[in-house]
Amino acid sequence: MNKTVKRILGSMLALAIVLGTGYTVNSQIKPQEVKAASSSSWNGKTPKYIFMFIGDGMSFPQIQAAQYYKGVQAHGAIDVKKGNYPNPEKLSFMNFPVAGTVTTYDSTSVCPDSASTATSLSTGKKTLSSVINMDETKTKTYETITEKLKKQLGYKIGIVSSVNIDHATPGAYYAHVPSRGDYYNMGLQLVDSNFDFFAGGKFLSDDSKEVKEQGKTKVGELAKAKGYKVVNTKADIEALKNGEKAIAVCPDDEVEKESGALKYSIDRTGDELSLADYTKKAIDVLNNDKGFFMMVEGGKIDWAGHANDAGSNINDTQAFSDSVQQAINFYNAHPDETLILVTGDHETGGLTIGFAGTNYDTYLQNLSNQKESYTSFDRKIAEYREKKTSFDDAMKDVEKSFGLKRAGSSGESTKGGMVLTQAEEARIKAAYDKSMLPKESRKLDENENVLYGTYEPFSVTLTHILNNKSGISFSSYSHTGLPVAMMAKGVGQDLFSGYYDNTNVFDKLKSITKIQ
Amino acid sequence: MNKTVKRILGSMLALAIVLGTGYTVNSQIKPQEVKAASSSSWNGKTPKYIFMFIGDGMSFPQIQAAQYYKGVQAHGAIDVKKGNYPNPEKLSFMNFPVAGTVTTYDSTSVCPDSASTATSLSTGKKTLSSVINMDETKTKTYETITEKLKKQLGYKIGIVSSVNIDHATPGAYYAHVPSRGDYYNMGLQLVDSNFDFFAGGKFLSDDSKEVKEQGKTKVGELAKAKGYKVVNTKADIEALKNGEKAIAVCPDDEVEKESGALKYSIDRTGDELSLADYTKKAIDVLNNDKGFFMMVEGGKIDWAGHANDAGSNINDTQAFSDSVQQAINFYNAHPDETLILVTGDHETGGLTIGFAGTNYDTYLQNLSNQKESYTSFDRKIAEYREKKTSFDDAMKDVEKSFGLKRAGSSGESTKGGMVLTQAEEARIKAAYDKSMLPKESRKLDENENVLYGTYEPFSVTLTHILNNKSGISFSSYSHTGLPVAMMAKGVGQDLFSGYYDNTNVFDKLKSITKIQ
Repeated sequence: MNKTVKRILGSMLALAIVLGTGYTVNSQIKPQEVKAASSSSWNGKTPKYIFMFIGDGMSFPQIQAAQYYKGVQAHGAIDVKKGNYPNPEKLSFMNFPVAGTVTTYDSTSVCPDSASTATSLSTGKKTLSSVINMDETKTKTYETITEKLKKQLGYKIGIVSSVNIDHATPGAYYAHVPSRGDYYNMGLQLVDSNFDFFAGGKFLSDDSKEVKEQGKTKVGELAKAKGYKVVNTKADIEALKNGEKAIAVCPDDEVEKESGALKYSIDRTGDELSLADYTKKAIDVLNNDKGFFMMVEGGKIDWAGHANDAGSNINDTQAFSDSVQQAINFYNAHPDETLILVTGDHETGGLTIGFAGTNYDTYLQNLSNQKESYTSFDRKIAEYREKKTSFDDAMKDVEKSFGLKRAGSSGESTKGGMVLTQAEEARIKAAYDKSMLPKESRKLDENENVLYGTYEPFSVTLTHILNNKSGISFSSYSHTGLPVAMMAKGVGQDLFSGYYDNTNVFDKLKSITKIQ
Repeated sequence: MNKTVKRILGSMLALAIVLGTGYTVNSQIKPQEVKAASSSSWNGKTPKYIFMFIGDGMSFPQIQAAQYYKGVQAHGAIDVKKGNYPNPEKLSFMNFPVAGTVTTYDSTSVCPDSASTATSLSTGKKTLSSVINMDETKTKTYETITEKLKKQLGYKIGIVSSVNIDHATPGAYYAHVPSRGDYYNMGLQLVDSNFDFFAGGKFLSDDSKEVKEQGKTKVGELAKAKGYKVVNTKADIEALKNGEKAIAVCPDDEVEKESGALKYSIDRTGDELSLADYTKKAIDVLNNDKGFFMMVEGGKIDWAGHANDAGSNINDTQAFSDSVQQAINFYNAHPDETLILVTGDHETGGLTIGFAGTNYDTYLQNLSNQKESYTSFDRKIAEYREKKTSFDDAMKDVEKSFGLKRAGSSGESTKGGMVLTQAEEARIKAAYDKSMLPKESRKLDENENVLYGTYEPFSVTLTHILNNKSGISFSSYSHTGLPVAMMAKGVGQDLFSGYYDNTNVFDKLKSITKIQ
């Protein structure tokens, strides 16, 4: 660009600011802000349709693990002798034209939680872990991007999650509470929000003390009274029509019974509604000429990360990618009016592609031996405990569900194979023994706390060993301090390049939509 | 894109190249390529001064750990009750205006090595681990960015590293060998390269079979015969003048004796030459009107990562940042002619900010208790072995060097503190016992291999425990599959935004410099 062009562009920018139609520079430079490319190709237009996809607990390791695994599934295991070199396959959003990196620390820790990080994305403010859209003193509330867009631009608002509708991440797009555990108050605020569409797992507020002990009306009922169509069968959800103000709750016969969330993708049968189905339905319901903003959370990526279950983690990252594909399809019909953002809120589990026991090798194809999530296998463990199932019998299920074979059951080499070493079998046996104790009588010592976290010792040891045999590893049952990726496609995409703080995501959205 | 559009774009591109003013699109779309922002602010000018900084083993975890640690050093430990919220301090290059993300897998593995990844950065080609600038059959050689710039544009070439000058990463900027271990041949190629300045640790080729067994002339002598000024005292290095063709080898009295590399930053005394000093000297020597390209490697970030020594890792990341500051100073004097790139070649160690035993908390301030690198402490261990030093006596050194206190030596709480738990002391004692055995008679079982890797059991256990007490963790002694950050500042910076493959880094440099 020569100086004349620069000067002309400069004048246009100044004019645009005066006219209120141009690129608005953030007045406040936030921590860690790296400015976007000095010249942006954004034409100053406000996207009418905005998608905000949040892969909970999804950072670079989750994205790359899923892509490397997809590559192995598509092209076979890496085998240098056969010339089968690594050949990753992309997730839907990894073809987006713009990429950024986003730091995630909150006011409590560099390992933040979902409440505070979603607050930052939703309001541009840092706060304490577990606080939703309030300041660190828990007295002042912050207005959210969704409230602003609804109020100032008349956009319809949709909120979709693969976990409970009143979990922290979706909650941060409609509620303001001092604690993410205030499910009932979050539910009241959901009803008051007058937002247009909600979909996801069952309300945690149904089990709150307000409902169970104080006999207050369930949130779903309050919503109905306020005019929401609240549906929770597959047929009713599928029948929802454009313009209906509705809440779609995961049907009882499809729900993960322990949590009320959608099932892990690895456990879902083909005809059950997926996150992609709910996303598609949200688009159908919300689509209107004034515009919409939709937040879609892949919440079980995080849960699988907490549990160190790599197979479920990768499968749910794929399911999240499939839900983004629904937005890409919409974008293709409205390319000049749509913006799609895909990011994470933080990393979960300290997932690494690499493990001390496998050095530079990975055997990601081994993960395809996993047939169910740890949650699903935990149901079997509960039965073993009840029926006093022997270790030998339990290990038959282990081979079916995780592909882990006992020594002697095959002559196969253990290098990259699925035969358990003596040390691995000893770890599994110790974990089985611990899981056979009634939960209340289990005491974990310091080392066992690191080995099992708060999970069922037997299943978490099985996923650990399958992970390690695949060449991957986890270091934590909590969130970690890794930044997350931001992928952007559509109107205003260029503003999302750079290495910046999660509070800046809100600032950039504010600039593009010109809200106050 | 249909064929007609492609043809039109092709013509426009050809015209742009002829005029030398346009955005040059890479002809070959590489795996994982995400195109840079559609409109770039690059003015088509070729940067005259190009800096390529490679933090070996430096990815997002290393960058963030260093920044969070710097924040704690500057503002005190995180303490919510006191309102002391996380407040990271930036490394020099984290203020750069453009950021990208770069995938690193090679033809052998998704956990690649430094030879192949530096080959990708240097030539735009994937190859097998341990191969430098040759194809997977080890028969075809690839021309490097340095060779092209020297030949086609007459740029001077400088290569600087904190590890040996003939280590893999620097080697990938002057040599072509089927194995990174071919030090003598790499040395011969260094001499033949006619490149202008080399600086770093001692030549590994001095200990090669060619020199030791076959009596061949040392590389330094060959270089002298070819007209290089080869210096290895502080005074002689400091006396090097602009325009001198020189090789600056780390002085004998400053070198890390085990490796011939520069010392870890944590072990360096104030008056010893740092990577920043060598970088500054490279600028002074190379600066000329035709231009230069300089590769500077922070090689000991990687070595500390392999050893799971977080304290040394963070200190060397800071030293690397200080060396980038030298380029920033140069940029400030030549802002319209300079491009600085800062990236990593791969992640090392599976470093996570977060650990299963500390959940969401970190205590990064604990790392400041570390006073020397594992390498330096290993010298003490060798003495303990020789002198049969008791565990009790060794633990006195442990407290001095790592701050780890034995229970009973203080009433301090262990939560975030430095007092060892019983389980931790038991781990240290087992490692001490293993380290007290002569190296040749040690046998590691499967679990010990994961606990100690190929390191001295005593010291690696001490760094593991200090890491964990600081809230951080490593999962591997090798490289992992995480992508790396790319930070760019200067002429052509915008081309380096996006999420792309390491082979694309070469393509982008090729576009900007218009070499063939």
